[in-house]
Amino acid sequence: MQNLITIREISETQLRNYLSLSFQIKKNPEQFSQKLKGKNILLFFVENSTRTKLSFENAVKKLGGNIVSFAGGSSSMSKGESLLDTVQTIQQYGLDALVMRHSSSGTIDWLSKASQLPAINAGDGQHEHPTQALLDVFTLMEHWNISADQPNPLQGKKVMIVGDIFHSRVARSNIHALTKLGAEVTLVAPKTLLPSDLSLFPKVNVLHRWDTEEGKERLAEADAVMMLRLQLERQKSAFFPTAAEYRHFWGLTRERELLLKPSAVILHPGPVNHGVEMDTEVVSSKKSLILKQVENGVWARMAAFVGVLK
Amino acid sequence: MQNLITIREISETQLRNYLSLSFQIKKNPEQFSQKLKGKNILLFFVENSTRTKLSFENAVKKLGGNIVSFAGGSSSMSKGESLLDTVQTIQQYGLDALVMRHSSSGTIDWLSKASQLPAINAGDGQHEHPTQALLDVFTLMEHWNISADQPNPLQGKKVMIVGDIFHSRVARSNIHALTKLGAEVTLVAPKTLLPSDLSLFPKVNVLHRWDTEEGKERLAEADAVMMLRLQLERQKSAFFPTAAEYRHFWGLTRERELLLKPSAVILHPGPVNHGVEMDTEVVSSKKSLILKQVENGVWARMAAFVGVLK
Amino acid sequence: MQNLITIREISETQLRNYLSLSFQIKKNPEQFSQKLKGKNILLFFVENSTRTKLSFENAVKKLGGNIVSFAGGSSSMSKGESLLDTVQTIQQYGLDALVMRHSSSGTIDWLSKASQLPAINAGDGQHEHPTQALLDVFTLMEHWNISADQPNPLQGKKVMIVGDIFHSRVARSNIHALTKLGAEVTLVAPKTLLPSDLSLFPKVNVLHRWDTEEGKERLAEADAVMMLRLQLERQKSAFFPTAAEYRHFWGLTRERELLLKPSAVILHPGPVNHGVEMDTEVVSSKKSLILKQVENGVWARMAAFVGVLK
Repeated sequence: MQNLITIREISETQLRNYLSLSFQIKKNPEQFSQKLKGKNILLFFVENSTRTKLSFENAVKKLGGNIVSFAGGSSSMSKGESLLDTVQTIQQYGLDALVMRHSSSGTIDWLSKASQLPAINAGDGQHEHPTQALLDVFTLMEHWNISADQPNPLQGKKVMIVGDIFHSRVARSNIHALTKLGAEVTLVAPKTLLPSDLSLFPKVNVLHRWDTEEGKERLAEADAVMMLRLQLERQKSAFFPTAAEYRHFWGLTRERELLLKPSAVILHPGPVNHGVEMDTEVVSSKKSLILKQVENGVWARMAAFVGVLK
Repeated sequence: MQNLITIREISETQLRNYLSLSFQIKKNPEQFSQKLKGKNILLFFVENSTRTKLSFENAVKKLGGNIVSFAGGSSSMSKGESLLDTVQTIQQYGLDALVMRHSSSGTIDWLSKASQLPAINAGDGQHEHPTQALLDVFTLMEHWNISADQPNPLQGKKVMIVGDIFHSRVARSNIHALTKLGAEVTLVAPKTLLPSDLSLFPKVNVLHRWDTEEGKERLAEADAVMMLRLQLERQKSAFFPTAAEYRHFWGLTRERELLLKPSAVILHPGPVNHGVEMDTEVVSSKKSLILKQVENGVWARMAAFVGVLK
Repeated sequence: MQNLITIREISETQLRNYLSLSFQIKKNPEQFSQKLKGKNILLFFVENSTRTKLSFENAVKKLGGNIVSFAGGSSSMSKGESLLDTVQTIQQYGLDALVMRHSSSGTIDWLSKASQLPAINAGDGQHEHPTQALLDVFTLMEHWNISADQPNPLQGKKVMIVGDIFHSRVARSNIHALTKLGAEVTLVAPKTLLPSDLSLFPKVNVLHRWDTEEGKERLAEADAVMMLRLQLERQKSAFFPTAAEYRHFWGLTRERELLLKPSAVILHPGPVNHGVEMDTEVVSSKKSLILKQVENGVWARMAAFVGVLK
């Protein structure tokens, strides 16, 4: 039994295998259309999600599998049923793998072991979101026409990850994926939105604001800028002052976009807060790969299933 | 690309084409059973609905199409994702048309243009609900054995629309449909539940209450009475005093039903507030076409798809 | 038209017929795989449920039928649509049977008559939950290798039902099923969680607590112990003092499990409150048939459909 719970704990080779698979599947999806034939995949989303759930559903369908959908809120979960009891109940009707989103870090890992089901993490708390990192890195490599077959494929590439690093599982998974593949990563965030102990991370650069000379220079050098979604509800906890101020210091405004190299690209996991972390003109600019990310999510998730269930 | 957003903006000929199609489809549904083969139809219901959603689902199924269902509440919409971002995300997996219900008038029109998807309005705020008007008029013409092939098919028919005209998209779409087809329409409503400026409407008669000599005479002449659902929560805003008083002045009671011609028919878009706008005996009386409306909703919506996607 | 609304009102022969069918279906499910071909089964769950709904869904699928799913909360029910109007609306698209869960006792019986649809009760208030009793008794008979073909098949068997008898539809249906089949039933519950008038029940024994000499003797004689789920929210109403105290007096602790005969078995309808009505070690002990109950739920519900729609 295999899992995809974290990017941190898989080897560079395993990571490149998932990426190679993504390329193969996108090139020739027909070849994989029966890979999950007769398999039941539980999509267990205890936390809300539009994009990720839809993307996993499409991946299962394209592989010929059956979806068993289970949303925490509308069920006995509200009667206090334990997660394991729920999964074991559903297991009685036949299950081959578990895809889970949950607000607590580590839940998916524990549940996969307890239920003895292969599992794919669809986002657990502030921990990791490995398939998002797969699709992001896949999108970059495809755009740059870089193969996943050689070690260190992203060497020499400069990638900025901007925003609420502290609370972001997307950032954590991407930091691990990008550094494993050789990219140079710079985090851009106010101190309140950075982890206090960065030594737990791989080697990354840190920049506290964009409106300095250094900030502008780094922006001009970047090959890719990965924006994070700002959780506006965090403003209440005083992590940042106002949405307008956040935009001023850390938003990818139209002005900042113009500082980027012509060849630079922009990513965002969606949904975007227009006019906060990103101006609307930037969302739909030529540099934006956002809709490409959505499309590639399906291929990367198909690769995750094929890798985990092989 | 075609749309069905309003009845007001389509021509009489287009309206009769939708009705002709409804007759054809009901007569020979097998002939249309592959019309949406391989097409993905997004049912995007941001506002609650039982009847309308179920009816659209059945229409898509009978035409051989695939349903992609998306409910605002249980998804990232609660994270503030914009409507267009949502539709564009889903579009990445392939979409051929959009059916939408939303609480704001005009949203569907804007979204159809922005996403470049053919769209059918399943009710937008207080604006229009065109497929409800199609099915209502279709039900009347079928009952009266009137063909949609000749202009002015409802000439000479007297139809009353009764209740909360002001807030009703069902009323708006029906006023346009009925008058375009030549019927004589009388609105029955208290002043507080009528639009202040009726000049925006086609020519209609207005009656403020039923318990006058004029009210009784009109009732005796009507060929059809179209009751509207009372939104009981509006009582708080003092649009009307109490449910009992509403019934007394504007409800279709058993007593009033007896004043109707034997051949007159009664419609209601459902769900009925029993004992408020309509007595239970009237709901199930021989004059009531309510269950026929539900059945015809599927044929009329199939016609909407065939018309829009042809 | 037939129904399965209560165990109390069916004869011992009818009950054994449902059980015989369960054995036959489990032995040879293929033989029944087309029994609901072309039939539409409405699953109308106005009260939340994970296990029961999933089990019914699986039963319908294994019989080749179509599921029409309708959850009270997410629909027009919130606009005050009446249950009958809802069912009649859906009936317009074709319905062959109704499975319903509702918080009010008797609703399903009334709705089945009003809509003239064959109906299976999936739990109505504190009244009955007949398919749970079927699956529980089926699980016991299968474990004991007892056929359903002879009258009085459970004669000589001692079964304890433990916990909140007063509020439990599971207990009511099981008391009727077990006594009809000849078992000797003992209820174990505090006075506050027993009906005040036990004369409405078949002949049962009553024990108020387990920590007496009599309690221990009865425990040592039991062939099966059927634990009920404690509704923890009832504590507020002072039916019992605290969860810990409940466990002390009426919980199936590891210590009490050791007092049971080696051949005794333990049932629970799920989901278990671990550490309240049952210790976690007991849930997963060899005596526990809990996961077997989940599995058998599908066969018993298939038998319910076959029996009702034959």
